[in-house]
Amino acid sequence: MIQENSIGLVETNTFTFAKKEAFQLESGATLQPVTLAYETYGQLNAARSNAILVLHALSGSAHAAGYHTADDDKPGWWDDSIGPGKAFDTNRFFVICSNVIGGCYGSSGPMSIDPATNQPYGLHFPVVTIGDMVRAQVKLIDHLGIDKLLCVTGGSMGGMQALEWAAHHPQRIKAAIPLATTARHSPMLIAFSEVGRQAIFADPAWNQGNYYDQAQKPDAGLAVARMVGHITYLSEQAMHQKFGRRLQTLERYGYEIQTEFAVESYLKYNGNNFTRRFDANSYLYVTKALDYFDLTSPSGSLAAAFASSAHIKYLVVSFTSDWLYPTYHSKELVAALTAVGADVTYLDIQSTWGHDAFLLEVETMTHLLDSFLQRLAQEEAVALPEMNQDQPL
Amino acid sequence: MIQENSIGLVETNTFTFAKKEAFQLESGATLQPVTLAYETYGQLNAARSNAILVLHALSGSAHAAGYHTADDDKPGWWDDSIGPGKAFDTNRFFVICSNVIGGCYGSSGPMSIDPATNQPYGLHFPVVTIGDMVRAQVKLIDHLGIDKLLCVTGGSMGGMQALEWAAHHPQRIKAAIPLATTARHSPMLIAFSEVGRQAIFADPAWNQGNYYDQAQKPDAGLAVARMVGHITYLSEQAMHQKFGRRLQTLERYGYEIQTEFAVESYLKYNGNNFTRRFDANSYLYVTKALDYFDLTSPSGSLAAAFASSAHIKYLVVSFTSDWLYPTYHSKELVAALTAVGADVTYLDIQSTWGHDAFLLEVETMTHLLDSFLQRLAQEEAVALPEMNQDQPL
Repeated sequence: MIQENSIGLVETNTFTFAKKEAFQLESGATLQPVTLAYETYGQLNAARSNAILVLHALSGSAHAAGYHTADDDKPGWWDDSIGPGKAFDTNRFFVICSNVIGGCYGSSGPMSIDPATNQPYGLHFPVVTIGDMVRAQVKLIDHLGIDKLLCVTGGSMGGMQALEWAAHHPQRIKAAIPLATTARHSPMLIAFSEVGRQAIFADPAWNQGNYYDQAQKPDAGLAVARMVGHITYLSEQAMHQKFGRRLQTLERYGYEIQTEFAVESYLKYNGNNFTRRFDANSYLYVTKALDYFDLTSPSGSLAAAFASSAHIKYLVVSFTSDWLYPTYHSKELVAALTAVGADVTYLDIQSTWGHDAFLLEVETMTHLLDSFLQRLAQEEAVALPEMNQDQPL
Repeated sequence: MIQENSIGLVETNTFTFAKKEAFQLESGATLQPVTLAYETYGQLNAARSNAILVLHALSGSAHAAGYHTADDDKPGWWDDSIGPGKAFDTNRFFVICSNVIGGCYGSSGPMSIDPATNQPYGLHFPVVTIGDMVRAQVKLIDHLGIDKLLCVTGGSMGGMQALEWAAHHPQRIKAAIPLATTARHSPMLIAFSEVGRQAIFADPAWNQGNYYDQAQKPDAGLAVARMVGHITYLSEQAMHQKFGRRLQTLERYGYEIQTEFAVESYLKYNGNNFTRRFDANSYLYVTKALDYFDLTSPSGSLAAAFASSAHIKYLVVSFTSDWLYPTYHSKELVAALTAVGADVTYLDIQSTWGHDAFLLEVETMTHLLDSFLQRLAQEEAVALPEMNQDQPL
């Protein structure tokens, strides 16, 4: 059911490059060709100066707003913030959401066909980094004819991509809004990633990544991986509020070795659901990219990473109950950006929603994003798109 | 190699009861017979007033101190605190450590033989609670001829048992030292337990708990469960200090889907090690007992749970970086104990070691336990045991 204030029906596009010349990855390996899935909302203005690139988190896709069919139960993952009159106002801005390479939502990834074998890559897909994901997005932005993005933004892994844009492609963006994220994956984050990967490896159906033609997929392992992840997206307080010690169906303890508490049912349900929409090999690749992410490398200094990025305007947001990317990660980032003399607005938003707060604190985020983008559009003299004409691309 | 200040060579004893009349469990089910593994250190004094019961955490055993053989690499799990001249001074006190039912270290549990079938119980073992574990320990204390324990103590699940003793067997103890624990498992704790259980369920070798006669055990699932648990025992800061983003063997990223970071290797190594010393079914039973633990039930009030326990002296200890049983759990407990007028000493110890701090902050804990026990022994006029005589039991 399409909500009234939504952008309405949208579709996912694909852009394929590196058809003739292979795309060089950070590892030294290459990928050829490379496909990116992306969606766009709103219209590019004549000066091509109103484009905002939205980047998704671990399990996200290019489908950030609107509906694919009139019957869709749910809109895109950030529909609360992208649409006419919303924070990323599609009456004013041309919003692009790009999927990442390594994923399983239409971009090149382990379930794509390897042209060398005509079989899915599986573990033959090269390991990709956040840097590789973003360099592929640069190709997309080139393709869309945009020289400078007004803004790049995203939460969690999306925020890492935004920071990667700022650190390594500073001339291509005017502003960056990294939300609930980090400039460097911590050992605790690596530890949680690894547990998820080990859960997948432990599933015999994973079969070293060769399961695409098999009846049984490594769903059990992937579900456990997702359950671990899911806990880290919630705060302890949110779990108290949402579930407490409530039993799902029983009146009293059943004294059986089985799922009984509401919080267990919720995690199990979501873990199983996840296996219907995500690929286990992609989970390995995308978490590996997260773990490798470290903007302090190789210089050892976060400020050095942003040495050429002082002209960019930043809105950095953390959330008080986010224990996956706790506030100190954002504070370290803000200290580095401030050290290079960048224009930084920083907020540590009081929230009980944990890491998920960047998607759930809609009202606060709308006010905040709106005022930052208003100021940005004014300072950069961003013209409105000419309405009711065909989209230029 | 036996350390000089150790209690020396010790052995695990067993006590079997409910041979004729079945042991009634909270669930309504029964167990017959019931065996408890236990160890004792030091000597009971003539008045039988110097006995301290030590209770272990999730994966612990009755082997709390000393060595089983002269070649043992490591002493019992709390050897730092139990021994001659140590916090639990075996020159003064008669220290007992009892294993829990449901476990796999010599007490009745899912790998025990079910007399009805002459096969291991597996999932036919009844679900047991912390209350059941403690009522079995009461039988052991009866058997040892001890009317009143000077003190019960333990960390984590051991602390829950200590609280269960205080709440439901208050006339049998004079003091309780619950460390890094809670009076009620939170939904986040339940969530982590359930992920561990689902990891075991997901392992085909688990086979509904029937694997004792099979070549393949659910080691892969159990290792993942342990890895998840292990993360929760460490603090983020401890992980930074211990591992940072260091690679285990490589000089630079290997760009392969495999374990590379030191923190990953550590977790994986410990997860695999765990499968050599713990039973997957016991992991299910013991975590279930943890999840069921809620001293506010059925009254709804923690103070009501301790209404008959005001005469007990309490030393409650939490640790600032313990995010598994955060400080607020202990503060709620202290508030309830204070409300009933109990004599409570409470410390929130500054530590970077996370939940494991109760075992690792040896110097601080020694001072603290020592001064509490000195005062207790003095106030209760506890006589020294007569030395150099055979142990009375």
